[in-house]
Amino acid sequence: MQKFRIETDSLGEVSVPADKYYGAQTARSLMHFAIGEEKMPLEVIRALALIKKAAAITNAELGLIPEEKTKLIVKACDEIYQGLWDDHFPLYVWQTGSGTQTNMNCNEVIANRANELAGFPLGSKSPVHPNDDVNRCQSSNDVFPTAMHIAAALSVHNLLIAEISKLKDALDKKSKEFFHIIKIGRTHLMDATPISLGQEFSGYVSQIEMGLSKINGSLNDVYGLAIGATAVGTGINAHPRFGEKVAEKIAQWTSFPFYSAQNKFSSLAGHEPLLALSAALKGLAASLFKIASDIRWMGSGPRCGIGELILPANEPGSSIMPGKVNPTQAEALSMVCLQVMGHDTAVTIACSQGNFELNVFKPLIIWNILHSIRLLADSCRNFRRFCIEGLQANVKKIKEYVDNSLMLITVLTPKIGYDQAAKIVKKAYSENCSLKAAAVALGILSPEEYDLYVQPEKMIGLD
Amino acid sequence: MQKFRIETDSLGEVSVPADKYYGAQTARSLMHFAIGEEKMPLEVIRALALIKKAAAITNAELGLIPEEKTKLIVKACDEIYQGLWDDHFPLYVWQTGSGTQTNMNCNEVIANRANELAGFPLGSKSPVHPNDDVNRCQSSNDVFPTAMHIAAALSVHNLLIAEISKLKDALDKKSKEFFHIIKIGRTHLMDATPISLGQEFSGYVSQIEMGLSKINGSLNDVYGLAIGATAVGTGINAHPRFGEKVAEKIAQWTSFPFYSAQNKFSSLAGHEPLLALSAALKGLAASLFKIASDIRWMGSGPRCGIGELILPANEPGSSIMPGKVNPTQAEALSMVCLQVMGHDTAVTIACSQGNFELNVFKPLIIWNILHSIRLLADSCRNFRRFCIEGLQANVKKIKEYVDNSLMLITVLTPKIGYDQAAKIVKKAYSENCSLKAAAVALGILSPEEYDLYVQPEKMIGLD
Amino acid sequence: MQKFRIETDSLGEVSVPADKYYGAQTARSLMHFAIGEEKMPLEVIRALALIKKAAAITNAELGLIPEEKTKLIVKACDEIYQGLWDDHFPLYVWQTGSGTQTNMNCNEVIANRANELAGFPLGSKSPVHPNDDVNRCQSSNDVFPTAMHIAAALSVHNLLIAEISKLKDALDKKSKEFFHIIKIGRTHLMDATPISLGQEFSGYVSQIEMGLSKINGSLNDVYGLAIGATAVGTGINAHPRFGEKVAEKIAQWTSFPFYSAQNKFSSLAGHEPLLALSAALKGLAASLFKIASDIRWMGSGPRCGIGELILPANEPGSSIMPGKVNPTQAEALSMVCLQVMGHDTAVTIACSQGNFELNVFKPLIIWNILHSIRLLADSCRNFRRFCIEGLQANVKKIKEYVDNSLMLITVLTPKIGYDQAAKIVKKAYSENCSLKAAAVALGILSPEEYDLYVQPEKMIGLD
Amino acid sequence: MQKFRIETDSLGEVSVPADKYYGAQTARSLMHFAIGEEKMPLEVIRALALIKKAAAITNAELGLIPEEKTKLIVKACDEIYQGLWDDHFPLYVWQTGSGTQTNMNCNEVIANRANELAGFPLGSKSPVHPNDDVNRCQSSNDVFPTAMHIAAALSVHNLLIAEISKLKDALDKKSKEFFHIIKIGRTHLMDATPISLGQEFSGYVSQIEMGLSKINGSLNDVYGLAIGATAVGTGINAHPRFGEKVAEKIAQWTSFPFYSAQNKFSSLAGHEPLLALSAALKGLAASLFKIASDIRWMGSGPRCGIGELILPANEPGSSIMPGKVNPTQAEALSMVCLQVMGHDTAVTIACSQGNFELNVFKPLIIWNILHSIRLLADSCRNFRRFCIEGLQANVKKIKEYVDNSLMLITVLTPKIGYDQAAKIVKKAYSENCSLKAAAVALGILSPEEYDLYVQPEKMIGLD
Repeated sequence: MQKFRIETDSLGEVSVPADKYYGAQTARSLMHFAIGEEKMPLEVIRALALIKKAAAITNAELGLIPEEKTKLIVKACDEIYQGLWDDHFPLYVWQTGSGTQTNMNCNEVIANRANELAGFPLGSKSPVHPNDDVNRCQSSNDVFPTAMHIAAALSVHNLLIAEISKLKDALDKKSKEFFHIIKIGRTHLMDATPISLGQEFSGYVSQIEMGLSKINGSLNDVYGLAIGATAVGTGINAHPRFGEKVAEKIAQWTSFPFYSAQNKFSSLAGHEPLLALSAALKGLAASLFKIASDIRWMGSGPRCGIGELILPANEPGSSIMPGKVNPTQAEALSMVCLQVMGHDTAVTIACSQGNFELNVFKPLIIWNILHSIRLLADSCRNFRRFCIEGLQANVKKIKEYVDNSLMLITVLTPKIGYDQAAKIVKKAYSENCSLKAAAVALGILSPEEYDLYVQPEKMIGLD
Repeated sequence: MQKFRIETDSLGEVSVPADKYYGAQTARSLMHFAIGEEKMPLEVIRALALIKKAAAITNAELGLIPEEKTKLIVKACDEIYQGLWDDHFPLYVWQTGSGTQTNMNCNEVIANRANELAGFPLGSKSPVHPNDDVNRCQSSNDVFPTAMHIAAALSVHNLLIAEISKLKDALDKKSKEFFHIIKIGRTHLMDATPISLGQEFSGYVSQIEMGLSKINGSLNDVYGLAIGATAVGTGINAHPRFGEKVAEKIAQWTSFPFYSAQNKFSSLAGHEPLLALSAALKGLAASLFKIASDIRWMGSGPRCGIGELILPANEPGSSIMPGKVNPTQAEALSMVCLQVMGHDTAVTIACSQGNFELNVFKPLIIWNILHSIRLLADSCRNFRRFCIEGLQANVKKIKEYVDNSLMLITVLTPKIGYDQAAKIVKKAYSENCSLKAAAVALGILSPEEYDLYVQPEKMIGLD
Repeated sequence: MQKFRIETDSLGEVSVPADKYYGAQTARSLMHFAIGEEKMPLEVIRALALIKKAAAITNAELGLIPEEKTKLIVKACDEIYQGLWDDHFPLYVWQTGSGTQTNMNCNEVIANRANELAGFPLGSKSPVHPNDDVNRCQSSNDVFPTAMHIAAALSVHNLLIAEISKLKDALDKKSKEFFHIIKIGRTHLMDATPISLGQEFSGYVSQIEMGLSKINGSLNDVYGLAIGATAVGTGINAHPRFGEKVAEKIAQWTSFPFYSAQNKFSSLAGHEPLLALSAALKGLAASLFKIASDIRWMGSGPRCGIGELILPANEPGSSIMPGKVNPTQAEALSMVCLQVMGHDTAVTIACSQGNFELNVFKPLIIWNILHSIRLLADSCRNFRRFCIEGLQANVKKIKEYVDNSLMLITVLTPKIGYDQAAKIVKKAYSENCSLKAAAVALGILSPEEYDLYVQPEKMIGLD
Repeated sequence: MQKFRIETDSLGEVSVPADKYYGAQTARSLMHFAIGEEKMPLEVIRALALIKKAAAITNAELGLIPEEKTKLIVKACDEIYQGLWDDHFPLYVWQTGSGTQTNMNCNEVIANRANELAGFPLGSKSPVHPNDDVNRCQSSNDVFPTAMHIAAALSVHNLLIAEISKLKDALDKKSKEFFHIIKIGRTHLMDATPISLGQEFSGYVSQIEMGLSKINGSLNDVYGLAIGATAVGTGINAHPRFGEKVAEKIAQWTSFPFYSAQNKFSSLAGHEPLLALSAALKGLAASLFKIASDIRWMGSGPRCGIGELILPANEPGSSIMPGKVNPTQAEALSMVCLQVMGHDTAVTIACSQGNFELNVFKPLIIWNILHSIRLLADSCRNFRRFCIEGLQANVKKIKEYVDNSLMLITVLTPKIGYDQAAKIVKKAYSENCSLKAAAVALGILSPEEYDLYVQPEKMIGLD
């Protein structure tokens, strides 16, 4: 049977599982906010541990908390950061819109663990008090958005950028490998002038480069931290240098250029930096959707589709059709891209809904962003490993298309004019013959002239 | 040089163009809300004319306005409904969120025109007063949402349903025409078991039928009118039977089952019926996107794509590539579908943003919905006339695909089992031979058995 | 150390954990699709168990599978439905877009468990074969969308409708409780004419009723099942009566009117019924957002806000401001509403992206819909229990507002005209006096007339 | 009666109004694409005129077109740029997805006008040919996206940035004007610690600054032009230096740093730079929504709302309630913000839907972006002029709130601890007395201590 202890907060007494470090307010939140399955992401918890540690040391430096308490707090924070107490953070995403309950969860776990380290019972709030010590110079209203920024920036760096870059590199490698494979271009899905398969892939590389650049660019504002704002942005109850000093420590520990945001009022009440990050993720998703779509289509067939690419066969594709292999990696990535777009819709509306000194959609905002980051990172990894790296060109099919295409005619227009050229195409199409035959039959070009002018490998701008 | 007269409202005097029937409040709105180019749609103006006419007659019946005034108001309303004074309604969509300014625009035009008919100068507000007479028993807060519902319902009926139905019929006709053309099915873009081209088109018909049914279904709530609610839903200053009597008249004149909404508070403060209509339009857009996409892809080529359909050549497709013909109707329709999705995003957020007794995003909501209706109707008309009706099947190409496909194997699995069947496909694919050759070579079937079992025309469930 | 056995599929051998019933294809999916944390929802797994059981019995009835095998399959299905083997369904949402891997997961678990029951080793595929027996007459392409529909309909019924109805009832109870509390109405956030607090709440009830009605209405198409379509909609390899018979059984077992969909092509390639359900959920979310918003605002204060309602104090509201109590339930519900809107964006785009015979965004579609249902149900439950049921009216504050409001003037306009009335308001506002004082000072009404006409309790249409 | 002439293109003869410079392809488009009311924006037409002029001069420099023709083309382009022939560009937005028809419209007008200038009849295509001369070295596929980028960048600069900056300056001026007005802060809509009204407005300034910075930042990629890519990105039929030279001229003429994009394949097939711009516009919209919302709420009342701000009374607010003044400018701006979010949804989906060498949602993308720019610019102008510049603080009301607020307690927590402080608040709230009275009654502080510690003007961090 589970044992309980009694903890108290300003509303009275609450039963708390005896083996948990969290206290009354966490317990209250669990009672009132059992919504869905999403827990507050551990990235946010880790970020809070960093902040609380930096706050404690700063408070010691400023003479606001004695060294002894600080040591206890720091040790508890280090343990949380290392993941020792993950199951002491049970709160749901769908809680108070300021993230206060998660901030208090963190304050409570740190205080209880610190007091335990000092030999005092859980719930004693002494020597370390969750509000007066752990939360000293802070408010949920500045701590939580600070944690959001740290969690987002670290996730982008630790999870996303590496995976996106590797996918870009894999596409770039394919671009070089396919450099001399001349294929038919397609615009409006219709046959157009030739292009190298490598050029096509270079377009993908370029799309992803732009996406990466936007994501990186959006981080500049994400590095700006709300800490020091406390309740409403004025810094009430915080030492004037508190925010700056905490930000410096976090920058030093993470090696990323975090800084104390210039205007703290907008840091609490708007979320422009995170909205811009979400938009950049959505932008990357749009690019990846196009890339996945092209690869699905070029791999379509094997006998009744485009068939220019051969995708790795990772698994049987059908429960009813034997031997079927499907572009499943591209499909999974495509789904993820749409999910990221959906997340951005939620984040966008949420970011518009601040009132006065606070936006109370914070847990939604950070959950969607971290979720988008994770999904994009994971699906890019799989798409690269199980689809892109094993892609092969179906050179025979590619050549057939180029040889048959009517749009090679384009290269003749500077020589014979658009209208004459159109006549040749029309004849070739309606009589189902080659361009050359039509051109000669119409007396517009000799066979020798045709062969001289119409060489696909000279049409792709690489000579 | 333009001439002006002076009109007054409760804030004072305003200059108004001498040749316009509108008055002070319309002139103020023009000064303060010159935003974008979108004018309040004429469908809304027409609906207002209907309402004001019904209101005047009702007020006469209830003894609230003398017959003489009523006649003048009715005549002015009829003229507006007939479109005689369209350029007297110059207001922008992006105005006050209740549509008050457009309601006053209407009150002013009616009063001035009525007074002119009675031989009094413009601006005299006598014998007919824009507020006390024309707006009698009404508030913008109930008149404007009533006009929104009428405009939306009439537009769906007059513009959209006919065009969607014609598109559906055209697809149905093609479905029957293509009934016996057996083509390869494609799932995950990969070759699958055969299907009749007519069956494929029957899927489109079914999709549109569901869309139509949802749109029609959504109208039931749209027929519920806010009229009688006045300022906040309580009906202050309106006769208790006013709303019901007005709704009856509108139902009678339009032949649609409009009724007085049961709960007037939600009619002013929420917009659930219109949100559901917008969602139904968005749903249809999703279906049409899929249909347009299939047709684009089946028409791709002519030599390097799928090439199963031949689309009408309505115009030269390229400024640089002679003889190129593109699926432009499908493209225009596809763009419209995405635009409708964008409109629904705006409408959705708007419908969530009511406060207390009023939602003040009314002009946005109705503009987006009417715009979606118009765009869908117009693009369905063109898509039908210039794409679907002239579609031809490329029977030769379609047959080639079926003959080559490896997925005909599926029909054998109940006879030889999934695993044996997979072996045949694998061999045929890797050795680029026919299924029959592979099946015989593996000793699984005799040639005669193969021919007996594998007949595409028996695989499509039509026998 | 974990032990493994070897299973095979058409691509070869795969290692599978020895204690799991799933087989080669599930193991392959785990390798290739480790994306995010979302597992295929158990509602879908349960629905698949129902379908496989119905399929097995139907196949027995049609003479396609011997009784003995059928019994084994049915027993395995029953166990899955009862939740005995939940951890044998480890696959992620972000997999193949047809859900094939989850269908095969189910086929494998059933076959292995059935064979075990029959005394054969796991992986033997005998006597029960995952494809040839468990999947008999089926394809992932019809089984998975059938499971989507069943899971969605059952979740709406089992989770959502009850909770929404209870919330509606709780609001209705408050509406009656607050029936005679006359408060100031507000339009454009500005003081307007009076309304009863109960009337205001009746608007919320009406909004939710419309939402419920849309959700219920959308189920009619969701009851239509794809089963019988097999690979591409033609029913290849399925007995012609298979779909109908399976649907009948599911209808009987669940007591909901499931039926075999008329057009199977659109059931595989579009997802109109689920898109309409998602839109209905989104519509409800918009309504709930408005309700939550009103309650947040009416509870704002306690001393510097609107302060008309007193919300239950469930937890301390601030880590820095003692004694602060926040409208946290309304905030959590508001966040959920926006999340549901985001899900609908993803579902909408997904539903537009079908190609030919299949839409390959199925796992995304069903995950988002089930997630929306769960979040709405949970947050409605909490919002009702911890916010609505304990709501109290601040009668003193409410009365003060009504007594002070200038908009009581409205009731006078039918008597003294809009222009005279406006003069009174202007005077009262600029001289900060009461309406009565201004009316009398202007000589428009006597004090007695004023008191006779201006009685808030007569302005709300309830007499 | 309208007169017609016959023009021809590669599909045959077409009747064209005799008084119009456009030719056969424009006339065909008018026939086939009468969808909605939106015409291709003139900003795109102007940009095309710039491109065609730069192209002609470049072609002359490269020896590809004789000087004489170039002069004629340049003169025609200059006239178009000056707006002389606006009604010769009648095409709709919803046309071919590449914008080919608008490119041809431009080629045709230029050719006909040039030939007319040279003394030749309209339709003669000589001496200047629309394809062979005006479109020399170009394709719609590179010309149109080039025009999109130019139109977007110029609109941002010419319309948007100035208006946003002026709004920011107006808010900044108010921030300074309101610097010393101490008001109650509000978080979760609940009373919080004090803040200066000027600080609150500084948050708005900061939000807009971030928005401006994102918009400006997004232009870097928008300056990259597709020109030189021709049909598929390879530059077929264009001189290798063509793109670079055209971009240089455009940069010089506009004074903005346009350049030839590095990877031309992504310029045609993706639209990452414009998607990022759209996202930045959406981000600004979210910020503006919050600002407008705050101002609406702070202006709510006049007697039953927050009432901290007095908004300019621009017009009578109600057709039924005399003397009512509404926050109409904030409402119009709020509607525009949601519209911009809707546009971004459409643009996002569109940008994900490219295939192979082309994205065929170009007209939709540019229309939505230009529309968002226009709406934001116009509504910011009006919001500034008719709302912000005339805002007044209701100092009396503001002071009342601060004096009454219980959250001044917060400043005491570092002195007396969170738990003691909470007791004081609880007592003051339940007994409806002042904090001071409660603190003294509880024996926690003397009256003198209270007055010393609790001074709102010292709580806002400005000393």
